[in-house]
Amino acid sequence: MRRSNVIRYALEQYTSYRVPNIQCAQSVWYTQSTNNTFAVWRRRVHCSTALAQKRPERVQLSSVRFPQLKRGDFARVTDRDLQVFERLVPSRVLTEPDDIEGHNVDWSGTCRGDGQVLLRPKTTEEVSAILRYCNGRRLAVVPQGGNTGLVGGSVPVFDEVIISLSLMDKIISLDEISGVLVCQAGCVVDKINGALEPHGLMTPHILGSKGSCQIGGNISTNAGGLRMLRYGNLHGNVLGVEAVLANGDVLDCLSTLRKDNTGYDLKQLFIGSEGSLGVVTAASVLCPRIPGAVSVALLGCDSFAQVLQTYDAAKTMLQEILSAVEFMDRASMEVVQENLQLTCPLGAHSYYVLVETSGSNAAHDEEKLNSLLGYVMENGIVGDGTVATEPSKVQSIWALRENVAVALRRDGCVYKYDVTVPMSRFYDLVADTRERVGTDVTRVVGYGHLGESDIHLNVTCPQHSDEVFDALEPWVYDWVAKCKGSVSAEHGMGILKRDYLYHSNTGPAVLLMKQLKKLMDPKGILNPYKIFPD
Amino acid sequence: MRRSNVIRYALEQYTSYRVPNIQCAQSVWYTQSTNNTFAVWRRRVHCSTALAQKRPERVQLSSVRFPQLKRGDFARVTDRDLQVFERLVPSRVLTEPDDIEGHNVDWSGTCRGDGQVLLRPKTTEEVSAILRYCNGRRLAVVPQGGNTGLVGGSVPVFDEVIISLSLMDKIISLDEISGVLVCQAGCVVDKINGALEPHGLMTPHILGSKGSCQIGGNISTNAGGLRMLRYGNLHGNVLGVEAVLANGDVLDCLSTLRKDNTGYDLKQLFIGSEGSLGVVTAASVLCPRIPGAVSVALLGCDSFAQVLQTYDAAKTMLQEILSAVEFMDRASMEVVQENLQLTCPLGAHSYYVLVETSGSNAAHDEEKLNSLLGYVMENGIVGDGTVATEPSKVQSIWALRENVAVALRRDGCVYKYDVTVPMSRFYDLVADTRERVGTDVTRVVGYGHLGESDIHLNVTCPQHSDEVFDALEPWVYDWVAKCKGSVSAEHGMGILKRDYLYHSNTGPAVLLMKQLKKLMDPKGILNPYKIFPD
Repeated sequence: MRRSNVIRYALEQYTSYRVPNIQCAQSVWYTQSTNNTFAVWRRRVHCSTALAQKRPERVQLSSVRFPQLKRGDFARVTDRDLQVFERLVPSRVLTEPDDIEGHNVDWSGTCRGDGQVLLRPKTTEEVSAILRYCNGRRLAVVPQGGNTGLVGGSVPVFDEVIISLSLMDKIISLDEISGVLVCQAGCVVDKINGALEPHGLMTPHILGSKGSCQIGGNISTNAGGLRMLRYGNLHGNVLGVEAVLANGDVLDCLSTLRKDNTGYDLKQLFIGSEGSLGVVTAASVLCPRIPGAVSVALLGCDSFAQVLQTYDAAKTMLQEILSAVEFMDRASMEVVQENLQLTCPLGAHSYYVLVETSGSNAAHDEEKLNSLLGYVMENGIVGDGTVATEPSKVQSIWALRENVAVALRRDGCVYKYDVTVPMSRFYDLVADTRERVGTDVTRVVGYGHLGESDIHLNVTCPQHSDEVFDALEPWVYDWVAKCKGSVSAEHGMGILKRDYLYHSNTGPAVLLMKQLKKLMDPKGILNPYKIFPD
Repeated sequence: MRRSNVIRYALEQYTSYRVPNIQCAQSVWYTQSTNNTFAVWRRRVHCSTALAQKRPERVQLSSVRFPQLKRGDFARVTDRDLQVFERLVPSRVLTEPDDIEGHNVDWSGTCRGDGQVLLRPKTTEEVSAILRYCNGRRLAVVPQGGNTGLVGGSVPVFDEVIISLSLMDKIISLDEISGVLVCQAGCVVDKINGALEPHGLMTPHILGSKGSCQIGGNISTNAGGLRMLRYGNLHGNVLGVEAVLANGDVLDCLSTLRKDNTGYDLKQLFIGSEGSLGVVTAASVLCPRIPGAVSVALLGCDSFAQVLQTYDAAKTMLQEILSAVEFMDRASMEVVQENLQLTCPLGAHSYYVLVETSGSNAAHDEEKLNSLLGYVMENGIVGDGTVATEPSKVQSIWALRENVAVALRRDGCVYKYDVTVPMSRFYDLVADTRERVGTDVTRVVGYGHLGESDIHLNVTCPQHSDEVFDALEPWVYDWVAKCKGSVSAEHGMGILKRDYLYHSNTGPAVLLMKQLKKLMDPKGILNPYKIFPD
């Protein structure tokens, strides 16, 4: 039964149709080039996600772009260091610029480091030896997984030694009964799901970058992804972590147990700390069963109050089978229609809600979904709606939501903000932004993960505009802070959002973070310049 | 719909029938009295959960019982201190022995502190003022919630100042749409569920001590409870924590957001650290919807391999509606039949598996459960089984499982071990124990939460036996450590398990825990003597 076509199809749905191919996208996304001035530096930091259509010849060095940043008091790599590295990771010390280039530039082409050395360990012991040596020599390092982050957290800023985890890609064990997988940190999510699929299991999280991103990087950034509404976050699903501390000590917290209350839960320190407290080298993850059936409904609402009523009804009536509640406003639906010629099966509405169910019985799920549709329509909560259970139709509805980002790019320059706000203020951010920027822009759209209160605010113009940018930042982040939202729903702070750390944290909290950093990495060699403002 | 009888019934099931009344039980549970010798001290530490039928006149002072423990270099409370406390928490400074007695003795009657002062703050500011003063004066404190722990973690060892959170019992807010509740730490779980119920919501965790235990204590001990299989642990469900640090600083990490990746996730530090890093004063918790229907199946298996096959089939076929998988061996079933005259609807089998489902549609759930029953019986995985959907029948099946502990007490003395082991070794611990203790005991039983790999090993004798105890400890904990299990599935280390911290943690891990403790509580005033061995 567990190897049935139903499950294969379900896995395919989970791991394929809902995610754009980042590697393809990478070649056409880039950020605008800038001049090397302080004013521009401020702009670049704030405007980290402004996108346009041509990739510049070469992404500007972060050290040039951000002139306020000063290189820390770290040693520089010498020939003697290279000899030692060669001994520690034989034939896996890369120094040719062409080999390193891709590891110096982040995925969105916003940041470029000047790392001169790339190390590719295969084992925890090698990572330990590298860090012990680097710590002794006071050589700064940046741990790097799939390099799919969006805040410049996984590339050097200056000449940090890059430690790529890509060769640490072994599945260590899988307990089919408990669903606990143990693997090295460099395992790509797609690879993990490939290993899980024959056992009817899947990762509890799935991301747009699943073909490139690595579990160690996911943990280090506390990646949420598309399944969080249903399966929860990595703080709950990661059962164990093995990490190498700055001094090279190996911290083995690789428990595979769901219940373990013996002292402080140290693994939590490494979930979301962006490689600044230790390098994650292995993890154990609780993996759920692949659902037997997946269905979706697309519903049109004419007020945001109705959107919330729809969400509430979906949570109440679908309960255990609810796996996603996504949101698009009219402007989002228009852009996929206008720029990509996709067809919406519904008429024009102010808002659209996409509800996905994942269950073990297709007929049951369809019945529940139809009940929901009947309820919301009879009660005037939605104006129009459709349910799809057939794979191609499911996929075509998801395509509307998944292609908003692609469609927006065709407008020219896109200012993107991925933030979390309390549910009651979810759409106010978009409405207030629209009022603020007026007619100076092509469009202001709001879409995102309603179930997690994660709104993607996007503003497009034909090309970069200082006026628009100045109207948006730091206004957007101030707005988010005022309503106790989070300036970083995903990806962490990296270097691009570090100036906003206090927007979502109190002074005592940041102070404690700094104390933890000092305790665990007294020389500050692990991923310096990230997370904390100067 | 959300206020329907169906939901009320479901809530009742979740919050009533599955949990014994701890407060009643308290009056008949006690630990054996001992002499004040080192040999006996060792025994008392190890034999923390040996139970018999009469409560001694007065629980022995921990400071007398554990002579190896030396009082730390803390100040003693003076009249001047009492005057200050009276100013900080007017009329809520208790010093009468009768008022304090219940706060000095832990729930199981194993530990008794000699606290002379009980403070009852009502606000975070008061907790802050208390800790700031105590830290300045180097007065040790023990934070206390419902005092329902089983490892002596919530009572003083010497004369620590007791800070009771019981008056901090305000519900601060509830976002009905997102399901996020914010409340003070002293809220009792039952009270929270009472506030949630009209909104169709419930806490993600429920515990045997729900009528007494407080959310702050639950967080501080990372309580798992009966819903963990379905709703996950508190590391995933607690969205925010407000805590007061040892120096009185208030750490406001009271986020209500599901996605928030802005710096280190500090709240995780307070989940499971037993009040030793800070006093939790408020929390925000993600609360799921009350299920519309609850059903159970009781299945009899004749080999443990079949038990695992049954669990696997339940996870695969029930998926989203599975809410509990509990385990009893034949000896567990026999004891409830022999000592409590309960009736098992099945014939004799070596093992029993109780499967509970919670879903939104009773008919759907029953169909799925019947499919499971058909599958496991047709394939010879279970020898016999029954499904119950009618509330009284559901309750009578649960009563078999829930009353094992009560029934065991009637055997006389009970040695109890609540540990987690890898699923593949789940029952080996019971079998090996049975072989080890031979015929010197009344019975050796194994039951517990199969879904979380949490086994309750219980050994009974007519009365305490040194031979049996010496055969059991530290052998049981050594056995657990050898298979990489956890010596504390629930409740933490407290004082009673602190000697076994290294059994489930490596040296570098304990070192880092100690460093964290030193960083956050340099004078060591918060809940001293707990967690760490000397």
